[in-house]
Amino acid sequence: MKLRARHLDMESGGKYIAVINDEDAAGLGVSPLERVIARNGRRHVTCIINTSSKFVRKGEIFLYSETAEALDTRKGCILEVEPREELVSKAYIRKKIDGRELSEEESRKIIYDVMERKLNDLEIAALITAFHIRGMTLEESYYFSKTMIETSKKLHFPGTVVDKHSVGGVPGDKTSMVLVPAVASMGLTMPKTSSRSITSPAGTSDRMEVLAPVEHSADSIRRIVKKCNACLVWGGAMDLAPADDLLIRVEHPLALDPFLLPSVMSKKKVAGSKYVAIDIPRGPETKIKTNEEAERLAKDFISLGKRLGISVDCAITRGDQPIGHAIGPALEAREALETLMGRGPEDLVNKVASIGGLLLQMVRKGNHRTIMETLECGGAEKKMRQIIKAQGGNADIMPEDIPYARYKREVKSDKSGIVGSISNKSLVSISNSAGTPKDKLSGIFLHKKIGDSVRKGEALFTIYSEKKEKSRKAFSKARLQETYGILSHGGSKMLIESVR
Amino acid sequence: MKLRARHLDMESGGKYIAVINDEDAAGLGVSPLERVIARNGRRHVTCIINTSSKFVRKGEIFLYSETAEALDTRKGCILEVEPREELVSKAYIRKKIDGRELSEEESRKIIYDVMERKLNDLEIAALITAFHIRGMTLEESYYFSKTMIETSKKLHFPGTVVDKHSVGGVPGDKTSMVLVPAVASMGLTMPKTSSRSITSPAGTSDRMEVLAPVEHSADSIRRIVKKCNACLVWGGAMDLAPADDLLIRVEHPLALDPFLLPSVMSKKKVAGSKYVAIDIPRGPETKIKTNEEAERLAKDFISLGKRLGISVDCAITRGDQPIGHAIGPALEAREALETLMGRGPEDLVNKVASIGGLLLQMVRKGNHRTIMETLECGGAEKKMRQIIKAQGGNADIMPEDIPYARYKREVKSDKSGIVGSISNKSLVSISNSAGTPKDKLSGIFLHKKIGDSVRKGEALFTIYSEKKEKSRKAFSKARLQETYGILSHGGSKMLIESVR
Repeated sequence: MKLRARHLDMESGGKYIAVINDEDAAGLGVSPLERVIARNGRRHVTCIINTSSKFVRKGEIFLYSETAEALDTRKGCILEVEPREELVSKAYIRKKIDGRELSEEESRKIIYDVMERKLNDLEIAALITAFHIRGMTLEESYYFSKTMIETSKKLHFPGTVVDKHSVGGVPGDKTSMVLVPAVASMGLTMPKTSSRSITSPAGTSDRMEVLAPVEHSADSIRRIVKKCNACLVWGGAMDLAPADDLLIRVEHPLALDPFLLPSVMSKKKVAGSKYVAIDIPRGPETKIKTNEEAERLAKDFISLGKRLGISVDCAITRGDQPIGHAIGPALEAREALETLMGRGPEDLVNKVASIGGLLLQMVRKGNHRTIMETLECGGAEKKMRQIIKAQGGNADIMPEDIPYARYKREVKSDKSGIVGSISNKSLVSISNSAGTPKDKLSGIFLHKKIGDSVRKGEALFTIYSEKKEKSRKAFSKARLQETYGILSHGGSKMLIESVR
Repeated sequence: MKLRARHLDMESGGKYIAVINDEDAAGLGVSPLERVIARNGRRHVTCIINTSSKFVRKGEIFLYSETAEALDTRKGCILEVEPREELVSKAYIRKKIDGRELSEEESRKIIYDVMERKLNDLEIAALITAFHIRGMTLEESYYFSKTMIETSKKLHFPGTVVDKHSVGGVPGDKTSMVLVPAVASMGLTMPKTSSRSITSPAGTSDRMEVLAPVEHSADSIRRIVKKCNACLVWGGAMDLAPADDLLIRVEHPLALDPFLLPSVMSKKKVAGSKYVAIDIPRGPETKIKTNEEAERLAKDFISLGKRLGISVDCAITRGDQPIGHAIGPALEAREALETLMGRGPEDLVNKVASIGGLLLQMVRKGNHRTIMETLECGGAEKKMRQIIKAQGGNADIMPEDIPYARYKREVKSDKSGIVGSISNKSLVSISNSAGTPKDKLSGIFLHKKIGDSVRKGEALFTIYSEKKEKSRKAFSKARLQETYGILSHGGSKMLIESVR
């Protein structure tokens, strides 16, 4: 069916949507929500149909901005529209639902159909749920990685390219902010791209953005890395492994991530990384709860790395409390800067040295002591100021130049004793009530950590908030929740075990 | 945030969608595709946000027709819009994903959040996939049924209300078209509501519509049943167990139906059924492939029925070939009418008598022989003509009044022998290429069934099509597919086993 394209100045958030007249929909035999394939010359997209009886006339097709862009339509041009045929990849998803392993060709087809927007979000949600429940075999991880790599552009940086990745789940984890300049100061190339937070108080990009702009084009990132042999930028503009981003868009709302292994490793591969350290925080409230789980995951990362030609070492680290004292973009940026200046909290320094040390050992350029030295002698700080400058920030920034949020409330202990446990989940929820990740200055500063003595009435933590109403809300949440358990002794040694 | 409502004459296919200006979206902290709650006085809906930079101005909210209707807005009225809070039912879905059984309260909450459109399609797809993989316990089936019943309106019909349901999957199964008038002619009340086909060549509503209108209001259905103590109508207008319809909307595209038990039984309960016969066709290409599976399902239906106060008997029936000879709305209506006039195919008559007999036995009003008698003596036919008249059709219609499609092509056997197998899937696919379920006169007529002798060059089946192009397409599909296996003897006895 031929329909005249018209533009609708509306955005759907990445979905391809088109609106056609009721009668044309009946003619095509599609109902609202079903898919059609729309063609403009050699371009085509699978798009969702919405219908209209008056607003859109017979013979017309109104395109959402994303659809118009993908089809490169001009107003009035004629589109060829036809119902979507049954997809073979739906049968492959069903195969996985039924508990059978997918072949290379089947995994490939699924990724291509995701990329071409042929599989809809329902089908992708079923795929993700099935992989979460059935598990992904190492073979499947490899097949998915391969396809994600072949459908991505590749980056080429000079020198020995290394990288690190955290499986995540611990608030206040500003390790990358310190580790990247420390490792880069030893001459390794570390082009670190990271994400913004969606549900946690801060992502590495949110923290770095307090010190320097993080949104750069691929060309600009190349220049920064050439100058500093490192960067700390937002990865979104790079469009690496685009298939993965399309899966993540559905994984996030479901809070499932069965594609973790191919997702992480394909992104490292296309960025040219040869050596990668994976941080697996383990704790009662992180994604990985037991050492057995952590070791299994570590072995999977190492095996997949081997098949993709990447050397991987994993660090299983303590994730039972926040790293350092600060939670929230600005508070964490300040703490990271202090750590680079030689006065960081013991656990953060230990974590940076442990993971950085793994990377140095892999390329035989030192170990965790080398990292400690570059932090103490100012090498890492110098490198960070070089990166800040190259990314367009103020290279001379001092920790005290970073402002605090206007509203400040202390949460006090109602008994004396030793801090036995801290609830990460509860702190994340309080911090987000206070405004993170959106309000950069908001967050939490911990005065007490596991193993510290505390007296009744002494402050456990301070909540910072840019807005009065949010400050009030976060504080009342803090008083309702059991955030601290006052009990017994812990320690500050971060590394539980290295698996290689 | 207060926004002025404007109407967008567009339909999304049942989703609540609203379009707001980019800046307002940023102010609310939501991105396109995320949810907000929009309130108009005491009415509120959770709706999906799309954004626009120019088309929708700051301070405005454009509503899709479904959203405008649900909120009962008038142009220019002011809506209160706020971001959606985290849903506790998401945690319950996660619990099921992780393999744990849901409690009554958790199952309840999920259904309510589905009904209030708080759970989005991704979340519902994850729920459905998880229940398909993990299985639904009888307790969970009961909890879901209970909630589906309590959120539905109830129907009250006079007399002893009985019903039947087929788990489906066999083409040409016009059993209900014959069984309903046969059972009703014995004085039982049988208000049969059914669906239209989505992917099969015909649903009961599609078949019945050839003889009489099937779309009736609840009031009109009540009048029809009062007059005839039976009906054969489309269930869509009744809005029974609306929660179930919302789940089915996601189950269909995924081709999964883990909610089968609560879905079927809650609909029977709200229609006031006291005795229900469940037909479980078993065959290599039906949903249920082994006798063990079929017996397990039968026992689940019986147990769930007991808890809901419904007597259930199940019939496991042969589903290895189409029922009777005709496939497609008009061809099947003709065959059903012939059967009611005492000249039906043996297997169809046997199936009607077996299942109808179960119902009569349950209420001690006879058995399968009673059904055979009412078919032979014209009691069932008389009742059918009464129903056709009450629903607004021509009570005097004869089989030969139902026209054949214009284009007709015979598919011939390329060898001699005995028909050993027939592929239901292949016939469905050929029939749908010929135009079913949309083109009512299209379909297939089988000249040979399992156990029949066939000579080389003799016609196996005839393809009917309303359109020349579709006729050609169906015929070439038929020649490519292995539809008939010419091998050994079978029989026409339909009932494999009764489970009660």
